[in-house]
Amino acid sequence: MAGHVAVVGATGAVGQEFLSILAERKFPLEKITFLASSRSAGKTVEFCGKQHTIEELTESSFEGVDLALFSAGGGISKKFAPIAAKAGATVVDNSSAFRMDPQTPLVVPEVNPEDIARHNGIIANPNCSTIIAVVPVFALYKENRVERMVVSTYQAASGAGYRAMLELEQQTRDILAGKPAKREAFPHQIAFNLFCHDSAIGSDGYNTEETKMVNETRKMFHDPDILISATCVRVPVMRAHSEAINLTFAKPITEREAREILSAAPGIQVVDDRAGNHFPMPIETSGGDDVLVGRIRQDVSQPDGRGIDMFICGDQLRKGAALNAVQIAELLNGK
Amino acid sequence: MAGHVAVVGATGAVGQEFLSILAERKFPLEKITFLASSRSAGKTVEFCGKQHTIEELTESSFEGVDLALFSAGGGISKKFAPIAAKAGATVVDNSSAFRMDPQTPLVVPEVNPEDIARHNGIIANPNCSTIIAVVPVFALYKENRVERMVVSTYQAASGAGYRAMLELEQQTRDILAGKPAKREAFPHQIAFNLFCHDSAIGSDGYNTEETKMVNETRKMFHDPDILISATCVRVPVMRAHSEAINLTFAKPITEREAREILSAAPGIQVVDDRAGNHFPMPIETSGGDDVLVGRIRQDVSQPDGRGIDMFICGDQLRKGAALNAVQIAELLNGK
Repeated sequence: MAGHVAVVGATGAVGQEFLSILAERKFPLEKITFLASSRSAGKTVEFCGKQHTIEELTESSFEGVDLALFSAGGGISKKFAPIAAKAGATVVDNSSAFRMDPQTPLVVPEVNPEDIARHNGIIANPNCSTIIAVVPVFALYKENRVERMVVSTYQAASGAGYRAMLELEQQTRDILAGKPAKREAFPHQIAFNLFCHDSAIGSDGYNTEETKMVNETRKMFHDPDILISATCVRVPVMRAHSEAINLTFAKPITEREAREILSAAPGIQVVDDRAGNHFPMPIETSGGDDVLVGRIRQDVSQPDGRGIDMFICGDQLRKGAALNAVQIAELLNGK
Repeated sequence: MAGHVAVVGATGAVGQEFLSILAERKFPLEKITFLASSRSAGKTVEFCGKQHTIEELTESSFEGVDLALFSAGGGISKKFAPIAAKAGATVVDNSSAFRMDPQTPLVVPEVNPEDIARHNGIIANPNCSTIIAVVPVFALYKENRVERMVVSTYQAASGAGYRAMLELEQQTRDILAGKPAKREAFPHQIAFNLFCHDSAIGSDGYNTEETKMVNETRKMFHDPDILISATCVRVPVMRAHSEAINLTFAKPITEREAREILSAAPGIQVVDDRAGNHFPMPIETSGGDDVLVGRIRQDVSQPDGRGIDMFICGDQLRKGAALNAVQIAELLNGK
């Protein structure tokens, strides 16, 4: 029983999804408080059919709070998550602020649930594209170590928040009306276009989104040696990320073995109908909890039989963010 | 000098691009004839400011024709390309009908121009996603053999023809208006969605588009041993294909070496501005001739230094189809 739950950043795309998921899953709570910057304080949000007024987030907001769900950006988390933890709350933080902090567990319940035990008040929720990838990859990894993974992503607008989803819609309307596409949330046109993820590029040429995939996966797998290369790309899709994943295992693995492991794994739905040409798609993933996995096949470019290819899809706002955080909170509740 | 040129399938998306490119490049010809099935015969097409009536394609259409550009589907090519060749024309065929025929050269001018010399009346134009990939990959391959390539594609609607481009537009309008998306050209919704390429899936789990990438690349490189795995995906983009390509070379290669080779290669424009976060994008590629190459980086998942990652973009209707065919015709002209 979580008792008093605080939601920080309830008006954002992930914040709104927190509310839906807490309600859907009948998350046990006695009291819920909504916190935001002074800009949003005073507005109301609906939760379980009732209107709640958003309170201003201050240093004294967390007195008596048992669980704090943060989704208001790295700056807010950096400042207020330690304050919340000090006040006695357990924080599940959706930002990148604490993910690579050695003192902070980074958890996907299907991967490393045991890591929550060692938390010091803060548990970090991984990056969306990483969460969606590791659910199926770790299911396989447990049976046969993955030595290397090459990932190409097809990431939805939702990963950049509500403004970005609205921008995809507005740009699309404008282009169809023959008007120029206005850019605010994204640096490049997203409608009828795609572009490499617009996070900062490091000296090695990888962008931050790609580096997160490497570092966060290594941390959760407790395997600093797993080799990962990612290319992260934003596509004109609303809210589900897709990923083409090429794996190299320590030992040979057959397509059938991979399929059996994935079919039995929690949080995964295999959608792999070759005759009907029906595989994971964003529109069938949006709003759902599972990571859809399809195109499972022996990699013809690894003749030693150690390669598997697959194509996956997961809802960025749910499993990629809010659902995973609520699942962490459920683990804290001993569920 | 080509003399008398016949264009078979001039009203399709690739056919229309043939006409633009022949005009733009001032392709030397004395006479041009437009051929199509009885359904399109009698319609007119514009070429160099003049209206031309489309004639019905029959077995006697190719008398006196020197060069025949085919883009009317595999069935038409299979039947009429040998007839055209027998009548003395040289056929450049955009369909898949003859690509893997050992008697038929399959040519990308930047890769294997010498192969046109051994033609028997028909030269095949490769598949769009293959052409766009091999231009940069072969530039590197010439200097340092590529042992393995892992490709994920982001393919535009144009690859499935005009109807598919119109369907992307109409579905998008309908969805924005709250109406259901009608599907005709594609089996799945393309607007605000993506799906694995809807070609037939073989017993190995790869679809035909992916298998073409393997077989056509091997044929053009004269290298039956190059290892290739592709995942081909259709995205809601109008007419330029993008591809994330991960390469393994025979010998170590640095990012700088790769960049230098690509910068000097014909048919390529390096667009790789890390500070400005500006890389190849479909909207900047559409209507252009070059394959844009960016995100050139040493693959961190190949610590032996033999890996390079890159992200490329090419116009599907131009370099992916009509432009490559016209370039083949220019080679025939000794240009």
